Amino acid sequence: MPIDLNADVGESFGAWTMGDDAAILRVVTSANVACGFHAGDPRTARRTCALAAEADVAVGAHVSYRDLAGFGRRFLDVDPAELVDEVVYQVGALQALAAAAGTEVRYVKPHGALYNTIVHHRAQARAVATAVRTVDPGLPVLVLPGSVIEEEARAAGLRPVVEAFADRAYLPDGTLVPRSQAGAVVTDPQEVAGRVVRMATEGTVTAVDGTTVAVRPESVCVHGDTPGAVALATAVRAALDAAGVPVAGFR
Amino acid sequence: MPIDLNADVGESFGAWTMGDDAAILRVVTSANVACGFHAGDPRTARRTCALAAEADVAVGAHVSYRDLAGFGRRFLDVDPAELVDEVVYQVGALQALAAAAGTEVRYVKPHGALYNTIVHHRAQARAVATAVRTVDPGLPVLVLPGSVIEEEARAAGLRPVVEAFADRAYLPDGTLVPRSQAGAVVTDPQEVAGRVVRMATEGTVTAVDGTTVAVRPESVCVHGDTPGAVALATAVRAALDAAGVPVAGFR
Amino acid sequence: MPIDLNADVGESFGAWTMGDDAAILRVVTSANVACGFHAGDPRTARRTCALAAEADVAVGAHVSYRDLAGFGRRFLDVDPAELVDEVVYQVGALQALAAAAGTEVRYVKPHGALYNTIVHHRAQARAVATAVRTVDPGLPVLVLPGSVIEEEARAAGLRPVVEAFADRAYLPDGTLVPRSQAGAVVTDPQEVAGRVVRMATEGTVTAVDGTTVAVRPESVCVHGDTPGAVALATAVRAALDAAGVPVAGFR
Amino acid sequence: MPIDLNADVGESFGAWTMGDDAAILRVVTSANVACGFHAGDPRTARRTCALAAEADVAVGAHVSYRDLAGFGRRFLDVDPAELVDEVVYQVGALQALAAAAGTEVRYVKPHGALYNTIVHHRAQARAVATAVRTVDPGLPVLVLPGSVIEEEARAAGLRPVVEAFADRAYLPDGTLVPRSQAGAVVTDPQEVAGRVVRMATEGTVTAVDGTTVAVRPESVCVHGDTPGAVALATAVRAALDAAGVPVAGFR
Repeated sequence: MPIDLNADVGESFGAWTMGDDAAILRVVTSANVACGFHAGDPRTARRTCALAAEADVAVGAHVSYRDLAGFGRRFLDVDPAELVDEVVYQVGALQALAAAAGTEVRYVKPHGALYNTIVHHRAQARAVATAVRTVDPGLPVLVLPGSVIEEEARAAGLRPVVEAFADRAYLPDGTLVPRSQAGAVVTDPQEVAGRVVRMATEGTVTAVDGTTVAVRPESVCVHGDTPGAVALATAVRAALDAAGVPVAGFR
Repeated sequence: MPIDLNADVGESFGAWTMGDDAAILRVVTSANVACGFHAGDPRTARRTCALAAEADVAVGAHVSYRDLAGFGRRFLDVDPAELVDEVVYQVGALQALAAAAGTEVRYVKPHGALYNTIVHHRAQARAVATAVRTVDPGLPVLVLPGSVIEEEARAAGLRPVVEAFADRAYLPDGTLVPRSQAGAVVTDPQEVAGRVVRMATEGTVTAVDGTTVAVRPESVCVHGDTPGAVALATAVRAALDAAGVPVAGFR
Repeated sequence: MPIDLNADVGESFGAWTMGDDAAILRVVTSANVACGFHAGDPRTARRTCALAAEADVAVGAHVSYRDLAGFGRRFLDVDPAELVDEVVYQVGALQALAAAAGTEVRYVKPHGALYNTIVHHRAQARAVATAVRTVDPGLPVLVLPGSVIEEEARAAGLRPVVEAFADRAYLPDGTLVPRSQAGAVVTDPQEVAGRVVRMATEGTVTAVDGTTVAVRPESVCVHGDTPGAVALATAVRAALDAAGVPVAGFR
Repeated sequence: MPIDLNADVGESFGAWTMGDDAAILRVVTSANVACGFHAGDPRTARRTCALAAEADVAVGAHVSYRDLAGFGRRFLDVDPAELVDEVVYQVGALQALAAAAGTEVRYVKPHGALYNTIVHHRAQARAVATAVRTVDPGLPVLVLPGSVIEEEARAAGLRPVVEAFADRAYLPDGTLVPRSQAGAVVTDPQEVAGRVVRMATEGTVTAVDGTTVAVRPESVCVHGDTPGAVALATAVRAALDAAGVPVAGFR
C-alpha cells in the first residue's frame, strides 16, 4: 500500500521567508499550504500552489486560528460558529488561488494549536468538520488517529486520513510525547527514515519505553520549517524508495 | 430598461457594527459584501450573504486594499502582481461563504481608495481586471464610466457595468465633484431620489454648474454606512417605483 | 470613604465607533483607555485621553491580549514572557499618547478575557504584574477581590485596587454570576444604582440567593459599550451624589 | 570628527526571523529598532534593546506606516493627523521596552516608504516632526540631507542628523540612484568600505557619472536585513578603524 508524505509549506509572510518550499516539494506528495491566518499572504500561497502543481504534489488547505503574531501556535478560545466561517473563508480563498495556479485544493489539514486542540475539543472539532463539509464534502481531513476530529470528520460524512509524524517520539498508547518533554523529537535523519519505513511496511513504531506500538498511517508528516527539514524529508523519501514502498498522494 | 441599485454592506468587524444591512437589503438589488480586507470578518460576510439571499439580492465581492485600520480608504502603493493575488484571495473567500449561505458571488466592486485609484491608475486597474478574469471571466465589474478600469475590464474580456452615484454631485464633464469640495454630496432624500429617476428615465443629471450631463448607468450606488442611508435608499427606491422604472439586478 | 467609578472607553477603531465616550466621561472618575490590542487606534486613544483630561478623569491603560478580531474577549494561551512585553508595549504607547494629551497613565486595568483569565491563571497574572512593575511600580492595578492577580500585584510590590461591578449579579461567595447564566446582568438603572450605593455605604450586596455578601470596592465598574450604558452610569452617579457618597479617583 | 554607523534591527516578527541582529550590533553604534508597525513584536523589540544595551549601541525608534503585510515599504496615504499619533504611539511603546531593557530611545529614524515619502511630502514630514517634538524635543531625527523632513525637523526645534548610505550609488546632485535603476546598490564590501572612509575623511563620494559629490554625513546607514549585511558592515567598520576614523554615536 502506498504512503503519502505531507509537509507544511507556504509559511512565508510578506518580507519574511520561512522554509525551503521548492526543495521540500521535490520530496513530498502532499503540501499543506498556509491560508493567511497563521502565515502565508495571497502571493505566497499562489506561488506555493504553482510550485506544488509543477511538482505534481497535492495541495491541502492548512487552516488555522486567526493569529499571525503567534503563528497559530496558541490556543484561542474562538466561538465554534465563528470558527466554521473562518475555516470556510480560508479554504475558499486557497481554492481560488490554487485554481489560478492550475491546481485545486484536495484536502484540509488544521494547523498548529488548532490541530492539537481538535484532538480533544469536541465543539471546535465539529466546527472544522462542519466547515469542510460546507465547502466540499469530498475533501478529506488529515487527522491524528483516535482523535475527536477523526470522529467528527467521519460523523460529518468526510473522509479522515490518519497521519503519523516522522520525527516525533510516541508514547506506549500511540499518542505523541508532548513537545515540552525531553526526547519528544527525533532528530537523526537516518533514525527518522528507518522509523517511517517501519511504519509503512510493518505498521509499527518503537515507543519511548521500548514497546512496539501499532501505527498505520495513510500519510506521514515531515515538517517544513526547521533548518534540517529538507535533509530529513529527503532521507525519509530515499529510505522509502529503497525499501520499495510506493510514495503517492492519498487520493 | 431596468436599473440596479447597489449598496455597501457587511462592513461590520468583530465587535464593531456598521450600517443597517437588513434594512438596506430590503431596498437594493445588489449587495457589495466586504471580504475582510477593509472590513467584514468571515461570520459577518456569511450572515450578510444569507440576508442577501433571503432578500433575493445579488452578492458582489467588495474587494479592497489590505487596510483594516484605514477601512480601505487610503491609497496604498501595492505591487500590482500582489494586488492580483489579493483580489483573487478575497473573491475566493467570499465565494465559499456565499455558497455556504445558499447564494453565489455575481459581480465584483472595488472598494474605497482602490475604486478611486483604478479610475486612473493603469497598473492597479489591470491587476483588478486580471484577478477577476482569473477567478471567473463571467463576473462583471462595477466601474465609473470613462475610467481606466472600464477599459481594462473590457480588454480582459470582462463586462464592465457602469454605475452612477445617487448622492454625489457631478462636474460638467461627467466626473464626480471631489469629496474635499463643498457641495460634493447631495443630502436631501427627495432631491437625491429625483436625480436617480432622471438618470434612469432621461439618462441625464444636472451638474454643479447647471449644465445637463449625460449619465446612463446600469446601476446606481446608494451608500450603506451613513446615518441617513436607509432613508435615502428607501426614497430612491420609492421614487423609481412611482416613476414606473423597474428596479432589478444587472444580470 | 470616597468611591471611584471606572468605565471602558476609547474602544473605537478606525472607521468603527463604539460607545459614547464623551458622555461616560462626564460621569466616571477613572477611564480605562484601550491601547490598540483589542480596540483603540492611536488617534482614538489620544482623543480619549484628551477628553478624560478635560473632564478631570484619571486615565488607565486598558491592556489586552493581541486580538482585534475578537475584541480581546477570547482566552489566548500566550506565553507569559511574551505577555509581559506586550503589556509593557501597550502601557508605554498609552503613556506617550496621554502625555501628548496633557495627562498621564495613572493605573492599569486588564481587559476582557485577560481580566477573567488572571483571576485564576497564575503565570499570566504574574506576567501582568511584572509588566506593570517594570514600567512603573507606582501604577495601581484594578483587580477582582480574591483573585490571583490581586495576590501577584501585591507580591510584585504594586497596589491592587479592588473593584466591584455595578450591573453584575453576585454569588454567595462574592464572585460574579457567569455571563453564560441567566440573571448574570442587572439591567434596571435604579436597581443598579441602589446596589452601588449599598456597596459604598454598607459594604454589602445581595447575592442571587438572597444572602448578604460583603463587597468593599475602592472602585465600581460601569460599562461603557452598551446602549444603556450612559443612562446606567448616570443613575449610579446621581444616586451616589444623593446619598452623600463622595465620588473620586482612587488616588 | 567621529562618524556614527546605524543599521535596522529588531525586524523579526513572531515566528519569522530577519537578519543577524547580534552580529550587526557588534559593528554599529546606532540601532534602528522596529516598533511593531512594519516589523518587530514587543518581545523582539525588548530583546533587541537588551542586545543593544549590552553592546553599548544607542537605540533609535524605527517608526513606520502601519503595514506589516508590506513591511512598511509601500506608500500609504495616511492622514497626517493620524500619522502624528501613530508615531507617538510607536515611540512611546519602544521607550517603555527600552527602559525595561536598561536603556532608552535616543533618536528616531523613519522606516522604508515613510522615510522615502518625507523626503518630499511636506504634510507627512511635518507630522513626523510634530510627533517627535510631542514625545521629546530632545530626540534627534535621522534624515537625508536636503530633504523636507530635514527642514521640518529643524522648524520643529529638533536636531536633524544627516545620514549617508554605505551601499547606495549617488547621482551628481547628491541624491540616491533609485533602487529601480541598474547600479543603484554597490555590493562589493571593499568598495563600500572605501566609499564610507572617503565620506568620513574627505566628505565626498563618486557619483555614477564619475563626478565628485559632497557628502558630509554624521551617520552612515549599513543595512541589516540582507544576506551579506554583516560582512559589509564589518568591512566598513574595519576600514574606518584602519583609517583612524573614530566611530561613535552622534550624541
